[in-house]
This record gives sequence, C-alpha cells and structure tokens, in this order.
Amino acid sequence: MHLSRLSLELIINNIKPLERKWIKKARDHSCQLIMPSRALGRIHDIGEQICAIQKTMNPCIDKKAVLVMAGDHGILEEGVSSYPQEITGEMVRTFLKGGAGINAISRQVKAEVQVVDMGISTELDPSELEGGQLLKVFKLGRGTENFAKGPAMSKEQAKQSILIGFKCASDLIAQGVNLIGTGDMGIGNTTPSSAVGAVITKKELQLMVGTGTGLDEPGLRNKREIIRKAIELNQPDPTDGLDILAKVGGFEIGGIVGIILAGAYHNCPVMLDGFISTAGALIAQTLSPEIKDYILAGHCSEEPGHKYMLDFLELRPILDLGMRLGEGSGGAMAMSVVEAAVRVFNEVMTFEQAGVGC
Amino acid sequence: MHLSRLSLELIINNIKPLERKWIKKARDHSCQLIMPSRALGRIHDIGEQICAIQKTMNPCIDKKAVLVMAGDHGILEEGVSSYPQEITGEMVRTFLKGGAGINAISRQVKAEVQVVDMGISTELDPSELEGGQLLKVFKLGRGTENFAKGPAMSKEQAKQSILIGFKCASDLIAQGVNLIGTGDMGIGNTTPSSAVGAVITKKELQLMVGTGTGLDEPGLRNKREIIRKAIELNQPDPTDGLDILAKVGGFEIGGIVGIILAGAYHNCPVMLDGFISTAGALIAQTLSPEIKDYILAGHCSEEPGHKYMLDFLELRPILDLGMRLGEGSGGAMAMSVVEAAVRVFNEVMTFEQAGVGC
Repeated sequence: MHLSRLSLELIINNIKPLERKWIKKARDHSCQLIMPSRALGRIHDIGEQICAIQKTMNPCIDKKAVLVMAGDHGILEEGVSSYPQEITGEMVRTFLKGGAGINAISRQVKAEVQVVDMGISTELDPSELEGGQLLKVFKLGRGTENFAKGPAMSKEQAKQSILIGFKCASDLIAQGVNLIGTGDMGIGNTTPSSAVGAVITKKELQLMVGTGTGLDEPGLRNKREIIRKAIELNQPDPTDGLDILAKVGGFEIGGIVGIILAGAYHNCPVMLDGFISTAGALIAQTLSPEIKDYILAGHCSEEPGHKYMLDFLELRPILDLGMRLGEGSGGAMAMSVVEAAVRVFNEVMTFEQAGVGC
Repeated sequence: MHLSRLSLELIINNIKPLERKWIKKARDHSCQLIMPSRALGRIHDIGEQICAIQKTMNPCIDKKAVLVMAGDHGILEEGVSSYPQEITGEMVRTFLKGGAGINAISRQVKAEVQVVDMGISTELDPSELEGGQLLKVFKLGRGTENFAKGPAMSKEQAKQSILIGFKCASDLIAQGVNLIGTGDMGIGNTTPSSAVGAVITKKELQLMVGTGTGLDEPGLRNKREIIRKAIELNQPDPTDGLDILAKVGGFEIGGIVGIILAGAYHNCPVMLDGFISTAGALIAQTLSPEIKDYILAGHCSEEPGHKYMLDFLELRPILDLGMRLGEGSGGAMAMSVVEAAVRVFNEVMTFEQAGVGC
C-alpha cells in the first residue's frame, strides 16, 4: 500500500458500522456460560465487541502492538510545558533501548512496541540506534508551527499525518496484529490535545486544560490563556477534524487518527491510551462516527479533561489507576483484560458442556 | 507443617507490620524513573508495596496461584439464594475440568488454580476426577449449620477452617508462589458475607445486603430480614473475628482468613477477590490489623456492600468492571496489573541510566 495512492475519502467511505447481528449472537453465547447471567460484567461486553469487530464467534487476540507516534510542538515556545523540547527525542531513544514505561508494560502484556517519528525536532538516524525496537521515520517537519500565531500545520500535512498513521497500522495488521494500542510522545502535547478536546466537546477550558507533566498554578493559567487565544485566532471548525488537526493539532495526533481509521477499516480493535490518544479519537469520529465501535478505552487519565473526552465518545475506560504518562502505557496495561475477556468467551464451558442444568 | 501443631495465636503473634523503610527506599527509586514524577499513579504504589512486603528492591512476581475455597451453607434453607445447593459441587467439578470463569482468567494471567473442599455438601472423590487441576479435601462438614437457628459452626471448626487455609497457602508459598489470590465457591455465601460485613463495618443491612447471584426484590427483602434476625439471635462480638466466623460465617470464609494470615506471616502478597474474600479480610483484620499491608484488592464487585467493606479496610480496588462472579475471578484479572507494576519498578530506566538530565 503506497501512501500516494491512499485517499482519506476512500478510507472513510469504506468504514462500516458494526453489524449488530454479531453482538446479538455473541450475547446469546455469553448467556449460556456456566455462571450467573453476565456475572463478569464488562468482561462480557468487551468479548462481544471483539466478536463483532472480527465478525466471528471465535474471537482471537494473539498478536498485539503499540504504535508510539512522536512529534514536537511549536506551541512549546509559549511556555506551556515544564519540560524542554529535547526530551521528546531523548524519550524516543529510551523507547528504542527498551527502557521506558511503555516498554516494561508492553513486555508484560507481550505487545510489540513500534515508534514512529512523525516530526520530532531531534534528527535520529535509525541505523545508528541500538536496541531491537523499530523506529520508523516519516518526518512531516521538525515540530509543528506555533499555533498561538497561526495554524500548527498545513491541511496537506494534516492529511499526510493521518495517512502515515493509517499505513503504519495497516502494515501491522497485515502482519497479523489483531489488537493495536495507540501511543504518543511529544513534549507539550497536552496543549494541542486540550485545544482539540475543547473545540470538539465544547467543554470549557477550565475543565479541559490540566497541568500535563507538572505545571504550577501560574503555568496552568498561562496554558489555558494561550489555548483560549489560539482557538480564537485559528477558528477551527468543530465539525471538521482535518481543519482542527491542521489548526490546533499535532503530527502525532494525526498519526493516532490514522491508526484509529485503520482499525475500523480493517476490522481490528484499537486500544486507546489517554488524553492525547483520545484527542485523536475525537478527530477521527468527526471524519467517521463509526470508529467508536472499533475502539476500547484503556484507561482514564489523571489529566482532568480526559473524562470529558471519554464521555463525549460514550467510552468507558477499562482501568482508572491515576496514570498520566502517555506513551501508550494505559492502553497497553489494559490489553490483558481484553485478552482475558476473549478467553472467557472462548474457553468457559456452557451449562450444557459442563453437564449442569440450571 | 502439621495442622495439629499450628496455633492461631502463634501465627498472629508472628505477623509484623510492614517496615516503612522499604516503602521509603522504593519510593526514592520510583522518583528516579525516566518519566514525570509518579506519572504511573497507583502502579507505583503497588510496586512499592510489593517491595516492602518482600523486603527487597528487586521485587519478583513470577509464580501465581488462586486458592478457591469451597463450602456450603445451612442458611440456604431460608431461601436466600436463587440457586440450589448442588451447584456448589457442580461448580467444583467444573473448576477441576478447567471450564469455569476462574480457569479461563487464570490461564490468561498464568496462575495455577487450586480448589479446596472446606465443607461442601457433595461428596467428591478426588481420585475419580478428570482434569489436571488439583482438589484438596479438608471437609469440616457437609455445609455449615443454618445460622438463622444457631451458630454456623463451632469455635473449634472456625479455628480449623482458618488453619486449613493457612496451611494450603503456606504450602503454595513453600513451592515458590509469590502472589496468592483468594477465591470462593459456595451457593448462598453472600448471606454469611453480608452478615460478617454488617457486624464488622457496622453499616446498615440496607447497604450491606445485595441480590447475590440474582434474587428478585421480595427475595432480597427476605434475605435482609433473615440476616437481621440471625445477627440478633447469635450476637457475634464485632471485635472477635473467630466469634463472628463461628456464628455467622462459612467454612470457605474461614479458609480465606487463613490464606490472608499466611500471606502476612510469610511476607507474600495476597490478592483479594470480591465480596466473600473481603468478608474474610474483615475477619482477618480483627485478628491481626497488620494484614491490611499485605493485601491488594483486585476489584470492586457489583455486590453493593463490597465498597463499604473496602472502605472500612482502606483498600482501593485495582479494577472496577462490574464483575460479581466470585471464584477468585476479579483478583486473578488484576494480577497482570501487579506484575506490570513490578516490571515498571524493575525494568524502567532511571534518568541517569538513560543518560537524560532532567
């Protein structure tokens, strides 16, 4: 699949709603399992969703991957983060060495970690990098423009960022991956994500903007004010995800949009991580409302705006453990629950199989 | 270790509070990990708790087991459950065939399942049972007495049930198990558990008694009334767990008390499941308040009284997925999170190791 031949319109036109008949068939099966009716609560819902996405009564999650999309942000020059931009590149190096949070958690759940340079400021030469993790480089720039002064990127870059994410995820799915986690790295990226969240959910900035990696109170006030002015300046259209992505988004957020579209396009479940990933999901659902059926929300982030994003998408997070790291960590952590749900569906005996009348 | 030589007093006297110095050392390490301070929230707390329990800076969870304690209940004749007593034995057979919810979830998290007949009404001959799962038989009776008419069991049986649980868990720990999940099977056992919960937490029965496996509204009112009268009749001493266990408890609840004491005694973390397991924890903490440091709450059950029990013990559940199966299922499901927490502690690089100054 070549990027040049991909068209966003074609992708969107080929995303179909889940067929309800699979949900119904799967629910009928769950009711026969040897336990009180639906005694495993949301575990049943998750197993049935995977059935419907995969169009099968034998759901399978046996090859997992986390795609960590990395990008830098021009808005950083407005003082919206307590960390310097170089940290993005340093963290990408750490991912490739296997030494970050997402690496440890992914080893636990047996998920491959793939890192994509969507446009970080650091120049990394993949050939000189140690370690077994794969870096893909699809640089759309050395960070976005400062969207306090104009759009973060061009419409064409926004479209490309989505297509890159779509291609990376499609390649993994072609290799047999049947659960993809979204991940992000980008110092300052709670700022564009808050802007995206505020524009789409229409929640006040007071609720949608948080301290990110650790701003103090004056820093938080500045961040809110910067975002307020940037939205006013750029006037993104709340119904047009591509416009929002270009004006107040980020390259890695566009990549995440593409991963989500790929999941829905190829009938592969996508596990969302936290605040940045869910900003991507918000954009994706403006392009194709059907994507909501293909995603699972791995966790609820400590970043206060996240729950409003999840509510808007009518998603219930699997975990709620006070995490706020990003990198895909919360989604990866939740993968074990999804696999267990599939096992319950496939492996628990029915009353009939167990020879128990009830 | 022979049961006859075990003394409950000796066990209790040898349970020590966690040494705070290990928590402090572990927290100091967490602060150096290459991420914003404590960005993985409760994942850090869990990793540090395991360090302190195991008295190490290299915590290890690599051999897990779930002990499913099974018992029947004389109180069933008061119409407190929508299922008949024979189901307890049928479910034990299903555990041994590997076909129940706990088996599927335990396979996912790679935990061994061991089933203990603490006193079910069915007679099972271990030698004629198929399947690879192990059944241990320590029958204290064919179900407890109906505690609507007098004590559920004698003080001696109560003590024995605890010692059996202690021995089963101690044997697993001696085999290298370093995370034990508590599980239960016993038709009707939300009734004694509600009674235990009400006596110890002093919460109203309105809050503490739920529908269990699926009572209707009149059934729920009857169950509340039966429990109210039984507590009035038996007058259990809220400060004396052994008295409560004997008067309104169950054999499998006693077994769970023993597992928890064994974890604290041998410095091995214990993963609680839901309502019945937490009733066991409530009794255990009347015997030894230190046990709270050695347990993790796997999940919050749909059974409405569970959250009050957890609040009383100051435990925060890891998962909250609307589960209400028992068997150890919620605790087993949460084991992956605990293992991931240990991996984060052990495997994430420090800023110094990654060569990143921040």
